[in-house]
Amino acid sequence: MSRSRNQSTNKSILPPLVTIRRLSGYLRHINLLLESGKKVVSSKELADLLDLNPAQVRKDLAYFGEFGKRGVGYSIIKLKENITNILGLNNVRKVAIVGAGGRLGRALALYDGFEKYNFKIVALFDKEPHVIGETLGNNVIQHIYEFIKTVEEKGIEMVILCVPASAVEEVFEYIKFSSIRGVLNFAPKKLLSTDEIVVQNVDLATELETLSYLMAVREAKKIVEIKDL
Amino acid sequence: MSRSRNQSTNKSILPPLVTIRRLSGYLRHINLLLESGKKVVSSKELADLLDLNPAQVRKDLAYFGEFGKRGVGYSIIKLKENITNILGLNNVRKVAIVGAGGRLGRALALYDGFEKYNFKIVALFDKEPHVIGETLGNNVIQHIYEFIKTVEEKGIEMVILCVPASAVEEVFEYIKFSSIRGVLNFAPKKLLSTDEIVVQNVDLATELETLSYLMAVREAKKIVEIKDL
Repeated sequence: MSRSRNQSTNKSILPPLVTIRRLSGYLRHINLLLESGKKVVSSKELADLLDLNPAQVRKDLAYFGEFGKRGVGYSIIKLKENITNILGLNNVRKVAIVGAGGRLGRALALYDGFEKYNFKIVALFDKEPHVIGETLGNNVIQHIYEFIKTVEEKGIEMVILCVPASAVEEVFEYIKFSSIRGVLNFAPKKLLSTDEIVVQNVDLATELETLSYLMAVREAKKIVEIKDL
Repeated sequence: MSRSRNQSTNKSILPPLVTIRRLSGYLRHINLLLESGKKVVSSKELADLLDLNPAQVRKDLAYFGEFGKRGVGYSIIKLKENITNILGLNNVRKVAIVGAGGRLGRALALYDGFEKYNFKIVALFDKEPHVIGETLGNNVIQHIYEFIKTVEEKGIEMVILCVPASAVEEVFEYIKFSSIRGVLNFAPKKLLSTDEIVVQNVDLATELETLSYLMAVREAKKIVEIKDL
């Protein structure tokens, strides 16, 4: 028992997360190249498209056993298959939005861009009585009390979390009692991944406030510069 | 001239960006404390709320000349005023969405959560003929050709960019010719800040694909563990 646990946490043949995040970029450019009818791409070409250096590209792809032929390059179709595979994008993953009645939840429930990545929204939840029963896109908002049951019945694997900061911990308790394995957290309160559940935090409020700050700093500098002339 | 330019890039009394990103969290918790009627908060309390250590909190706030009284703490109202000020959230900033006819652009055009941060959407742009003239929320989608004129007329300072990767560079050229100073870039192609324009990149596709990858890795590990039992 303890041996297998150690094995799953210690042995690290996994590439660093920055490499994974770059794969996502490779995949997009590879799709564009495929559409344009290309069959082969060099590390130099990929590097130029992504503002990287070719050695970095070769190193990233070598993590996954992809080796281009010197002077020829990588087969684009093989590269695509391999990256899609690595990113786990082959299977449709069923997704629930929790906090679907709120502002962001509503926008995301109506957003049909997730399907491009094989994420399919199949259930919506909220706890505000006045939004329960409302239809958004193809789904009806259910009460959060039905969460665990619905997750099991529909085989939902992932949650997009759009609740207020104050509700995050409570909802995460529900999630931990279910078979959910991934959370995309838009709530303005960071969650940490557990042994069972992977969390990615996307904090739009912080992005907006950081942007606002940086704009304000530049404006202040402008004023200093003008005074300084 | 060159002196003032050097000054604006070299002299760095500015706090690191991680501090700014934490300010955003402080602000949210301070607002909750204010609502609950509290007047004073200690660095220990703030640290507990944000999973930081009190020394870190004191250091962050000291960047902005905020010093709590030993054994008493920080005045919550003063803290709020100060942070709101630092983050430049006092003034309403007018925002345009470019790529408003696409999937994400449409969702964001209808999303009313930006106003909480004093960002007000006042114009929408796209280049697809079939979406020009469509009303989303309080605005009508205009052709991108009208971008520069409309930005000047309405005093728009910021762009939310939701175009496909292939259109990013072209739109950024328009932006550089305008008086826009900030870009929140949702397009799946990174933009770098310039001397004039601050860019924050939010790559939802990469977040989703990274999440998918991490879920797939955990599943694979599970299988290894089960085999290993």
